[in-house]
Amino acid sequence: MQKKIAVLPGDGIGTEVTRGAVEILKAVADRYGHDFQFEYGLIGGTAIDQTGNPLPEDTISLCKDSDAVLLGAVGGPKWDSNPSHLRPEKGLLGIRKQLNLYANLRPISFYASLSEASPLRKEIIQDADFMIVRELTGGLYFGKPSGRTMESGQETVVDTLLYHRYEIKRIIELAFSLAEQRRGKVTSVDKANVLESSKLWREVAEEVSKDYPNVALEHMLVDNAAMQLIRNPRQFDVVVTENMFGDILSDEASVLTGSLGMLPSASISSKGPNLYEPIHGSAPDIAGQNKANPIAAILSAASMLRNSFGLEQEAQAVEAAVEAVLEAGFRTADLSGSGTNTLSTEQMAEEIKISM
Amino acid sequence: MQKKIAVLPGDGIGTEVTRGAVEILKAVADRYGHDFQFEYGLIGGTAIDQTGNPLPEDTISLCKDSDAVLLGAVGGPKWDSNPSHLRPEKGLLGIRKQLNLYANLRPISFYASLSEASPLRKEIIQDADFMIVRELTGGLYFGKPSGRTMESGQETVVDTLLYHRYEIKRIIELAFSLAEQRRGKVTSVDKANVLESSKLWREVAEEVSKDYPNVALEHMLVDNAAMQLIRNPRQFDVVVTENMFGDILSDEASVLTGSLGMLPSASISSKGPNLYEPIHGSAPDIAGQNKANPIAAILSAASMLRNSFGLEQEAQAVEAAVEAVLEAGFRTADLSGSGTNTLSTEQMAEEIKISM
Ligand SMILES: CC(C)[C@H](C(=O)O)[C@@H](O)C(=O)O
Ligand SMILES: CC(C)[C@H](C(=O)O)[C@@H](O)C(=O)O
Repeated sequence: MQKKIAVLPGDGIGTEVTRGAVEILKAVADRYGHDFQFEYGLIGGTAIDQTGNPLPEDTISLCKDSDAVLLGAVGGPKWDSNPSHLRPEKGLLGIRKQLNLYANLRPISFYASLSEASPLRKEIIQDADFMIVRELTGGLYFGKPSGRTMESGQETVVDTLLYHRYEIKRIIELAFSLAEQRRGKVTSVDKANVLESSKLWREVAEEVSKDYPNVALEHMLVDNAAMQLIRNPRQFDVVVTENMFGDILSDEASVLTGSLGMLPSASISSKGPNLYEPIHGSAPDIAGQNKANPIAAILSAASMLRNSFGLEQEAQAVEAAVEAVLEAGFRTADLSGSGTNTLSTEQMAEEIKISM
Repeated sequence: MQKKIAVLPGDGIGTEVTRGAVEILKAVADRYGHDFQFEYGLIGGTAIDQTGNPLPEDTISLCKDSDAVLLGAVGGPKWDSNPSHLRPEKGLLGIRKQLNLYANLRPISFYASLSEASPLRKEIIQDADFMIVRELTGGLYFGKPSGRTMESGQETVVDTLLYHRYEIKRIIELAFSLAEQRRGKVTSVDKANVLESSKLWREVAEEVSKDYPNVALEHMLVDNAAMQLIRNPRQFDVVVTENMFGDILSDEASVLTGSLGMLPSASISSKGPNLYEPIHGSAPDIAGQNKANPIAAILSAASMLRNSFGLEQEAQAVEAAVEAVLEAGFRTADLSGSGTNTLSTEQMAEEIKISM
């Protein structure tokens, strides 16, 4: 199989972890006789430094011409006081919009070999296995107006949470179709007791659910969801929610298993290339030290093999290698503990390659 | 001391838990020679059923004429499909706005006697003690426009996150002055890498911090805050944030100690009466069964004694009685476990009264 993969390392540890993931993809190509071509593009702070633009035109066309995109992470203190249009995050928000990546899929699962790393008691987190489906191109992070004005002599600022019905519908449909292949339950999270946008969200969820008689629909208020994730994470199968709620809840969920450095995500478009990236950020404090955990990026690459290229066997081989290396007691610094063997970013990628 | 207290029991377990809190306030009045007068008002679903209005005019004037307000909880499935203006929550949002209750203070503290009830490992949650200061009358829950429109043939919905500079300033000032009396640290939570409102929030926080040289200011992104609350809750002293972020984060925080049924809150106005209410909701599933935990309401009453009436000794007496009863192994059903003694709502209030 011949595929073109756009690689956008971005900032901080993004460079290191995508390097590990590319190594693994190359090993997969060798082993299974595929031809993967990698082309690199600039995004985020690095792109600002080199081109004055967090999302250069070249990067957009590179991505659009590729079969899939692998992204590292963006952001860092260096650019924190830049004006809005020169923020690294604009690059990430921009590529999501340009590629129409309306859904971000974040699977959260418990790794038995990492149970000591969870902040939760084992009996609560054990066997948790759910997927957060975050709307990614609408809501509060994109709505207009967004900015400052003077209102009767008072400095005033607004952001706008805006959705069109079709945007809500397509993400909820995706959640239902994922739930059909899982345990058949969708939890739709909103704040319908206060927000008008949530009322429409809830209405659309009810409508869509009629087409999926085998999937149970449950509504949950976002404040309650923030509690339930901690009290009883095992109750969830597929959780679907608005962009910002999804941002907050999926980060909350990502630490429950103790394995933020392990969690991949897939951002899905209805046509055109999908984008794969770790859930974690650019971690400026450990950038460039060959210490970061490359597993989230490597599992993002596995997700690409499965979801963009249909290479199920290859994806499973990568995932199994990750499991094996963890079982063998290898860890990067974020997870190292007694009885484990601490590896650098490069060593970890190498071990996974060897175990494949 | 003579004081007039407005009591708004509201819906569900609101009635039962405020009854317990009023018992305690009466006992305090007897013991310390005060004259507390209680007047009852309707709010929420109960008010809709009886008057067709979730916040009757009588309730507003009762509150405005009182020295402090004690509230139970609002909401329930009975009113869930009502139109927006006939939702119980409108009553709560309305009284906050009418009394200008711009700040909601939610202290989260670890109870050694309840450590088994926390979903977190003991070494993580032990000794956590922080205060969430939630902006309560602005932001996404109040901004206009909020509603549906047709936009080039597409059904569209918006909510608006709106702040005036003075609203941000007064809540951040309050957070700093609270931190001065605590451990001297303010964590201001925002999403300044994306939202314009958060950028102004951050700017104002920096400005205000100049007037408080003894208080350290730290900024944290809301998605990171959702993680940090679980990973290391002990790092926080005072957390200040926007209305909706505060709603989500404070509910998340409230389950960390395992004691949602224990947590009081105080809603503060710059002039006029403050309002005291438990963090928990109306819990329709156990309403009317004399099972609810009245401690959050009782501690809210203690907060009233301290913050509205300046009765520090009386407040401490109530808090000490709660501690003593827990130490003695008494619990309501939400917290009962091995080696504890399960009490009804009324029995729990009675035990606390006896221990005072
Ligand atoms: C960097 C930022 C814009 C981004 C977001 O909030 O969407 C990140 O937090 C994420 O969750 O992918
Ligand atoms: C009932 C609801 C309107 C309210 C809110 O979201 O403010 C509640 O969740 C709270 O936190 O006090």
